[in-house]
Amino acid sequence: MKVTEKIAALRAAMTEYGADGVYVPSSDPHMTEYLPAHWRSRAWLSGFTGSAGTLCVTQEKAALWTDGRYFIQAERQLAGSGIELMRMGQPGVPTVEKWLTEQLPEGGTLAVDGACTNVQAAQRLEKAFAEKKITLRDHDFIEALWVQDRPPVPATQAWRMDDAAAGASTPEKIAQVRRKNEENKADALLVCRLDSVAWLMNLRADDVEHNPFALSYCLVEKDAVRLFINAARVPDEVRAGLEEQGVALCSYEETADALCALKPGTVLWYEPAGTSMKLLRAAQSAPHVECKAGSDPVQLLKAVKNKTELECQKHAHRLDGAAMVRFEMELRRRVENGEAWDEWQAGEYLRGLRLAEPSCFDLSFETIAAYGANAAMMHYSAGKQTAAAIEPHGFLLVDSGGQYRMGTTDITRTYALGSLTHEEREAYTLVLKCHIAAARAVFHEGTSGQVIDILARETLWRRGLDYRCGTGHGVGFVGAVHEGPQGLSTRSTTAFVPGMTVTDEPGLYTEGKYGVRIESELICVPVCETEYGKFYGFETFTYCPIDTRPLLTELMTDEEIEWLNDYHAMVRRELDALLSDEERAWLENACAPLKR
Amino acid sequence: MKVTEKIAALRAAMTEYGADGVYVPSSDPHMTEYLPAHWRSRAWLSGFTGSAGTLCVTQEKAALWTDGRYFIQAERQLAGSGIELMRMGQPGVPTVEKWLTEQLPEGGTLAVDGACTNVQAAQRLEKAFAEKKITLRDHDFIEALWVQDRPPVPATQAWRMDDAAAGASTPEKIAQVRRKNEENKADALLVCRLDSVAWLMNLRADDVEHNPFALSYCLVEKDAVRLFINAARVPDEVRAGLEEQGVALCSYEETADALCALKPGTVLWYEPAGTSMKLLRAAQSAPHVECKAGSDPVQLLKAVKNKTELECQKHAHRLDGAAMVRFEMELRRRVENGEAWDEWQAGEYLRGLRLAEPSCFDLSFETIAAYGANAAMMHYSAGKQTAAAIEPHGFLLVDSGGQYRMGTTDITRTYALGSLTHEEREAYTLVLKCHIAAARAVFHEGTSGQVIDILARETLWRRGLDYRCGTGHGVGFVGAVHEGPQGLSTRSTTAFVPGMTVTDEPGLYTEGKYGVRIESELICVPVCETEYGKFYGFETFTYCPIDTRPLLTELMTDEEIEWLNDYHAMVRRELDALLSDEERAWLENACAPLKR
Repeated sequence: MKVTEKIAALRAAMTEYGADGVYVPSSDPHMTEYLPAHWRSRAWLSGFTGSAGTLCVTQEKAALWTDGRYFIQAERQLAGSGIELMRMGQPGVPTVEKWLTEQLPEGGTLAVDGACTNVQAAQRLEKAFAEKKITLRDHDFIEALWVQDRPPVPATQAWRMDDAAAGASTPEKIAQVRRKNEENKADALLVCRLDSVAWLMNLRADDVEHNPFALSYCLVEKDAVRLFINAARVPDEVRAGLEEQGVALCSYEETADALCALKPGTVLWYEPAGTSMKLLRAAQSAPHVECKAGSDPVQLLKAVKNKTELECQKHAHRLDGAAMVRFEMELRRRVENGEAWDEWQAGEYLRGLRLAEPSCFDLSFETIAAYGANAAMMHYSAGKQTAAAIEPHGFLLVDSGGQYRMGTTDITRTYALGSLTHEEREAYTLVLKCHIAAARAVFHEGTSGQVIDILARETLWRRGLDYRCGTGHGVGFVGAVHEGPQGLSTRSTTAFVPGMTVTDEPGLYTEGKYGVRIESELICVPVCETEYGKFYGFETFTYCPIDTRPLLTELMTDEEIEWLNDYHAMVRRELDALLSDEERAWLENACAPLKR
Repeated sequence: MKVTEKIAALRAAMTEYGADGVYVPSSDPHMTEYLPAHWRSRAWLSGFTGSAGTLCVTQEKAALWTDGRYFIQAERQLAGSGIELMRMGQPGVPTVEKWLTEQLPEGGTLAVDGACTNVQAAQRLEKAFAEKKITLRDHDFIEALWVQDRPPVPATQAWRMDDAAAGASTPEKIAQVRRKNEENKADALLVCRLDSVAWLMNLRADDVEHNPFALSYCLVEKDAVRLFINAARVPDEVRAGLEEQGVALCSYEETADALCALKPGTVLWYEPAGTSMKLLRAAQSAPHVECKAGSDPVQLLKAVKNKTELECQKHAHRLDGAAMVRFEMELRRRVENGEAWDEWQAGEYLRGLRLAEPSCFDLSFETIAAYGANAAMMHYSAGKQTAAAIEPHGFLLVDSGGQYRMGTTDITRTYALGSLTHEEREAYTLVLKCHIAAARAVFHEGTSGQVIDILARETLWRRGLDYRCGTGHGVGFVGAVHEGPQGLSTRSTTAFVPGMTVTDEPGLYTEGKYGVRIESELICVPVCETEYGKFYGFETFTYCPIDTRPLLTELMTDEEIEWLNDYHAMVRRELDALLSDEERAWLENACAPLKR
């Protein structure tokens, strides 16, 4: 079926149903970042396969909104489809809401798949539509259209972390949630985000690429906890373990019905950006149930990692660091010996090193191995056929991570492979200065990532330079490589507290030339408490040498050089037990103190 | 009349009127920072004279809320009054709203003077009262009680800045406001803040201590502009000038009536924190008038100073810097010669130097001249009788400013008067490092003061030190010494744009020992525009030497020393034309380049 045929079929179905327009977002029922293939309806319908995009179709027109990362790809993929490309953020490009309001008739109807549209998006549409009295109706056209070759709803086998490994049992976590419910004057919490359910239930699976989650919802009431999950994928001992801890298992498909049947008088707390319109409408249909919107309290609870989680994560980072050391040894050997290697092969080799460790069960995302100018593209991914050869000059940037049974990692190192231009060396040195500024930050209790962010950027801003992304993001515990709410960026308003972790990954990306990024993970730790209050800082817990070859020491302060030397001493200590004699000797050299 | 008698009289009036409680805030009808004496009802009624406090009285109880600055003073002044002191922010102390909700009966009535209670405060009370169905009624009991010796409503003579001196005419400013009204989808703007009215009308007077404002309101509609002001205080030429520019003058007392008579269909924009409950209720009583709450657009418009304002302000700072140079010369002479001088005398001498300049018509606030440990009290003010003698060791901190016809200034210098402890020198050096960090900041377009603030504090935070106030605040143009919305503090969410000015005044205050503060004013200026966007920074436009005697150069970076030397070179350039040969020679020495 060609895209034009699919759109024609959709329009026929729209006529039959009585919808003037259809809204197709890039979303699944849990608003996850990485969409399982089953829910890639927008890509199937439009032919545009980028990770972000919204398609709207009326009888006369069709348009697709996407952001700057995808303008070129979308233009190519939409050619001939009759779908107009809407370049988000460009002058004169209307928002989805504005365009739909203009296109749809007064009193018209827009169909949305309520299961995959979050409440925030739905409310934005409803607000725009109010004046023209356009109605939002929950209807899924895709189900009837996409019958052939549609990937199934994932239902991988679920497994549980035992309480000791998780550092807190499900009943302990439930008690924390119930305290939050009390503070929020709510009787029940609807948990929709997969990372939240995974943390709360100490439950993992493999439903989402690189994210060890099980599609499921959770409903925490005063006297009951229900987990909505496909029973077939839950082994008996997992079910027994959950039930023993007071969790009742219900069918995934029954979630909406359970909300419709909430006890009268219930005050239900939900997160608008994480909850589907369908589930909210179900709860709102229950008599005398009040739905209160607010942030998902589990997100903040799980962001503050407990002692066990931190110890486990540190161990995952040691294992990860050892793999990275082996990778760099091989890279150096090949470059020195002039043995051919390309980006894709390098990435595959690193994957192999990680997965050779028995506790590593997946990568935490697709490895980015980008050589030379390719590294200037922040979302570059080398294909097997199109990968660039690694040459003995310039930079190779490798951004990668693993899913270990005891933690999730995310690390970037940029390797100098021979001669460098002065510009490359300066860029590398500046990026390291930014990295160190964040890692060394000390801040008062209550300070958010939005504020700390400037410490990293100031070195670049002073020179009119910048990176067009955040400085860092939270990382889950055997979870998603992007977990919030904390972060280091202009949008991070969450105050850091000890136990939160965040990546520190400033970069410089010069189109057509090179890309530099240096990324480690940091734990927020207490520094001191004085008459002026509590002060926090960061401890770096990524253990892997930072290439010192490119550094222009004249651009560095004494404190920065001292920080780097201390860091390298720590890397040696932490990796010592995991390495062979040869590896240890190599590491000693890689971690040699930097001198002016 | 004693406080107990006043409270008794108030309770009798409450009974007669039928109020169960009375709420007396520290406020005037324009929510100004410095209260004209006429509106100091809370002080008159309670005997507590601090600048911040709220009094609540019921038939059984009376309580006064104030903050940490005033706990000791309030305790002393409230003794024997029967009024309970509520120490705000201390554990177990209820909020005003909570206490009133507990004390007042179900369905009861709280009287508030609607003219002096802003909408935000009123709504906070109403929200707390909703469950107990307590009603807020607008009634002023003070008028009938405080008859003897009540200072009159100020009505000083108004004067106008001509268009050239203001850099923009009233019609030009009105046009800017109307564009904002359009953006806000509003037909009219009610301007209540005195600094907003002063800027919009290019009008000044002397109603508020050190603030050259005239009590007045402004109503900007699509086709008319009305200024509500006491006619008796407006000279004919001022009236004629305003009328020529399309402004209709109305009586100050008619403001509420004018709002009651707004045309049906009008959408009125108002600022909840700056607008009185009385005026909002008046507008709400007008048939088919919609009142929309939002920020006062004039505050942001006037915060971005035009070229003329900046040039004029710079000249005010030159005049102010010359006065400061003369002050320091006299201070040094006296200390060297062992001539007795105390804090109060020093402050008076500085006042004399400022007012000797014909264009200086007032101070911008009461001079703080604090010697030794007194400077550790951030709001210290020396009385004539209680002033401490200035001795030839330790620090003298002087925070002061002037109102000039072409600008308002605010400056702090801390002078080393002889031997210093190592701790004092270190404190001074750290404070200067903080000061320089803010002054040297370079930041991306869109960055707010909340973010830049950490650059100033990081030096102290790293050592577990801090100052318990913002790093800086906006300053008006021939206006209030505190004007927003921009600032450098954890609460400053306004993005800086070129033309905004702000003070840079970090400090260290060690109880019983010393206080150090170094304050200059900064203008936000463009630095560069690159592929990464626009970058801004600051230009210091306070021209007065910074004492280099206390500096521990080993704590300073080369960049900091360079900044200081550049600053001192600029001070010499800018003050050159204003000084005598003797003064010029003295300044050359005071501005001598700092060497390691």
